[in-house]
Amino acid sequence: MSQSLLTTLCYLEQGGKYLMMHRVKKEKDGNRDKWIGIGGHFEKGESPEECLIREVKEETGLILTRYRFRGLVTFSSGDWQEYMCLYTADGFVGELLPEQMKDCSEGELVWVDKGAIDELNIWEGDRIFLRLLAEDAPFFSLKLRYDGDRLAEAVLDGKPIQLPDRL
Amino acid sequence: MSQSLLTTLCYLEQGGKYLMMHRVKKEKDGNRDKWIGIGGHFEKGESPEECLIREVKEETGLILTRYRFRGLVTFSSGDWQEYMCLYTADGFVGELLPEQMKDCSEGELVWVDKGAIDELNIWEGDRIFLRLLAEDAPFFSLKLRYDGDRLAEAVLDGKPIQLPDRL
Repeated sequence: MSQSLLTTLCYLEQGGKYLMMHRVKKEKDGNRDKWIGIGGHFEKGESPEECLIREVKEETGLILTRYRFRGLVTFSSGDWQEYMCLYTADGFVGELLPEQMKDCSEGELVWVDKGAIDELNIWEGDRIFLRLLAEDAPFFSLKLRYDGDRLAEAVLDGKPIQLPDRL
Repeated sequence: MSQSLLTTLCYLEQGGKYLMMHRVKKEKDGNRDKWIGIGGHFEKGESPEECLIREVKEETGLILTRYRFRGLVTFSSGDWQEYMCLYTADGFVGELLPEQMKDCSEGELVWVDKGAIDELNIWEGDRIFLRLLAEDAPFFSLKLRYDGDRLAEAVLDGKPIQLPDRL
């Protein structure tokens, strides 16, 4: 029986915008220069919600008060695999931490219009689940298989789907 | 970042019954004498659906054609933890394998009236998610913390819930 890497990712919503992190801080970040949501790795014994709330607090200073579990994303790339619990949250209290007050900053936080996210540098597979979120899809299980940085296969609830167009 | 154990569990449904496995085969089975659904551990890189379909085929001989991802259950007990993807399935083809034809039998398979399952020897926490399935609850995240065989805490979508009555 293999052991697997579990993570959460959350898109905080406010006024038609998502809180996005531009990952420009760590030299060796696999997400370097990419724009992603807020999240991180499970600590031992945490439920998805415990990980979600802790990660959002650590990375933004905000306390979630309302959130929805939207999907489970299976990433696979060669020998690497990750299972990511995907959330959106439209209730939170507190103030966004100023950069210099954060324990552990992984990037710059920016509120981005949902309609403008497609123009950012994001992972190909992220476009698929961002579309599902936009369509208010019911809970989904999405497998994304990458070949390096390139999305090679996407399977939604057990059925292969067409990959996004590439320019 | 810790690595975690991932499993699937499926309740196949037909005519008001669930296909239950009575775990009486392995001497050292942590589930020994308990009645549970059909499932097992993820293999490397599998999505939840890939694990689900493989495990049901291996343990019953049936091929799933319709299933629903109903919830994610976080089990924790001391140092042990497991994340279980919970499914129900009401579409499948094939015939239940006779015992002697199975590669790897972990127990006896019996179709049990849903109303009679409460009288079986099942884990305390299983009664909680079986009730959620019966109520057709939307996708849920349930954390079950055990102290040995005893359920110590249950948290549904981030909120503690009352434990089932004990006789």
